[in-house]
Amino acid sequence: MSRLGGLCPDSAGIPVGHGLCESFLENVTSPERPRPRLSASHAQSVGSDRADRTLADHSTKQALQAAPMKLYGHYISLTTLQVMALLAEKRSSAELALVDVFAGEQKLAAHLARHPFGYIPVLEDGGFTLYETHAILRYLDSRLPGPSHLPTDVHERARMDQWLCIEQNYLLPAAKKVMAREYAKMMKLADPGLALVEEGERELRVVIGEFADWIANRTYVAGDALSLADLCWLADLYKMSALPQMEAIFAGARVEAWWKPLTERTEWKRAVAELASYGPKSPSPP
Amino acid sequence: MSRLGGLCPDSAGIPVGHGLCESFLENVTSPERPRPRLSASHAQSVGSDRADRTLADHSTKQALQAAPMKLYGHYISLTTLQVMALLAEKRSSAELALVDVFAGEQKLAAHLARHPFGYIPVLEDGGFTLYETHAILRYLDSRLPGPSHLPTDVHERARMDQWLCIEQNYLLPAAKKVMAREYAKMMKLADPGLALVEEGERELRVVIGEFADWIANRTYVAGDALSLADLCWLADLYKMSALPQMEAIFAGARVEAWWKPLTERTEWKRAVAELASYGPKSPSPP
Repeated sequence: MSRLGGLCPDSAGIPVGHGLCESFLENVTSPERPRPRLSASHAQSVGSDRADRTLADHSTKQALQAAPMKLYGHYISLTTLQVMALLAEKRSSAELALVDVFAGEQKLAAHLARHPFGYIPVLEDGGFTLYETHAILRYLDSRLPGPSHLPTDVHERARMDQWLCIEQNYLLPAAKKVMAREYAKMMKLADPGLALVEEGERELRVVIGEFADWIANRTYVAGDALSLADLCWLADLYKMSALPQMEAIFAGARVEAWWKPLTERTEWKRAVAELASYGPKSPSPP
Repeated sequence: MSRLGGLCPDSAGIPVGHGLCESFLENVTSPERPRPRLSASHAQSVGSDRADRTLADHSTKQALQAAPMKLYGHYISLTTLQVMALLAEKRSSAELALVDVFAGEQKLAAHLARHPFGYIPVLEDGGFTLYETHAILRYLDSRLPGPSHLPTDVHERARMDQWLCIEQNYLLPAAKKVMAREYAKMMKLADPGLALVEEGERELRVVIGEFADWIANRTYVAGDALSLADLCWLADLYKMSALPQMEAIFAGARVEAWWKPLTERTEWKRAVAELASYGPKSPSPP
């Protein structure tokens, strides 16, 4: 049923790329890619206009009334997707305030006042402004009602923390290198050369291989429930899987048994659809 | 009294450098720098031979008997210092197993079995092996007795998490660039050029400036007690402050009012002295 299952879901249609809030450089891919063609159920769940871009169910609306939040991000950003995915798990939502990373808005004064290093996402929760994705995820997990996404067992929580660190310290920097040329072209910067991309591909192979070894016989990254590490890795691999050069890297990485059921979760589908709804207009769903 | 107070403590004597476990490259500085000349009280606190390199007080010995731990690290590594500093705060300790980063041991099979990306530190706690510094810090904070170093208030904890992310995503990558030439020389790699070092210096100025603005009127990074973020930033700035090119950057950064009392803590002095005791022999203390 779902068009999101499988290792490289919607690889022809998903707008690919990310805003790497965790580095001095930012990598985004071409904005010209078409928006994913959502299934009818996805389209229904996100509303049809900007003013009503919240999850449509009643409990979510109640949560929003209690906690109006604003997320500065972008529909191409994998870290924005991470936050949206957690919000959906928490049956909450936030208004997405688009920071036009293609126009470099993340480096302008208005955004630097929110995030002095010039990245997305940034969360505004009443008078409280927070940047850095992992800090935002941990904050929302504590602050919002519903089950926590941090394992209670000290060893399982440590393993979750380790995979969050690996995501930040190895996966995203390698991905940044892989996308360096595309980013430079888009931003009219000097071509950083093929060697950097190849270095990134080698590094990605190592880190995704390590993750595949770890996740091979597990349902979740740590413990017996979905944690922040699952959401981060899922969003990253989901966005990255549609990159042409990722196909060979993912082909050998046995992550599908973990990946498939997670991408079939209602909450995940909602997060993906809601984020995509901020993207460029697409043909009407069938 | 203390030789550790001040913005650039012992800048002539501290062995400077770090093992950046949070990147694919590793930056260390020359091993030829002399070991710091410890004060008599420091020397007393760490014992005189490798077999007895634990904190000397009785409560620590008791904790060790209950929880023998091994930390794979290096005396030049700022992330190793972070872990040692938390262990000292918890009145605990671990045997430091030196990974000779100058000989590239962190990339050999024995260490890759512990840390597949080839960095330090790695913690062994009975049968539980954990890598990535922030994961180790969070684990030890939960696992060991004594007050937690995570704020209980959700907003204060979020702020701590944010500064931990900034340390990992901006401070350490910038420091790595600053030290890139020295590292390349030591490892007999191609000179990465002055431009990279200058880029790192610009980035360091931004991130340390942001930190200085934040910490200017605060005793601690988040809340009203020492947190993991204080220990990380303290260890980083302490190790980095002795680099010649850091002097100008630190000169304008008003971090001393936060820094000075923290470096005067008994626990901090113990951690610094214990780590240094694994370093090369130095002249006897006066």
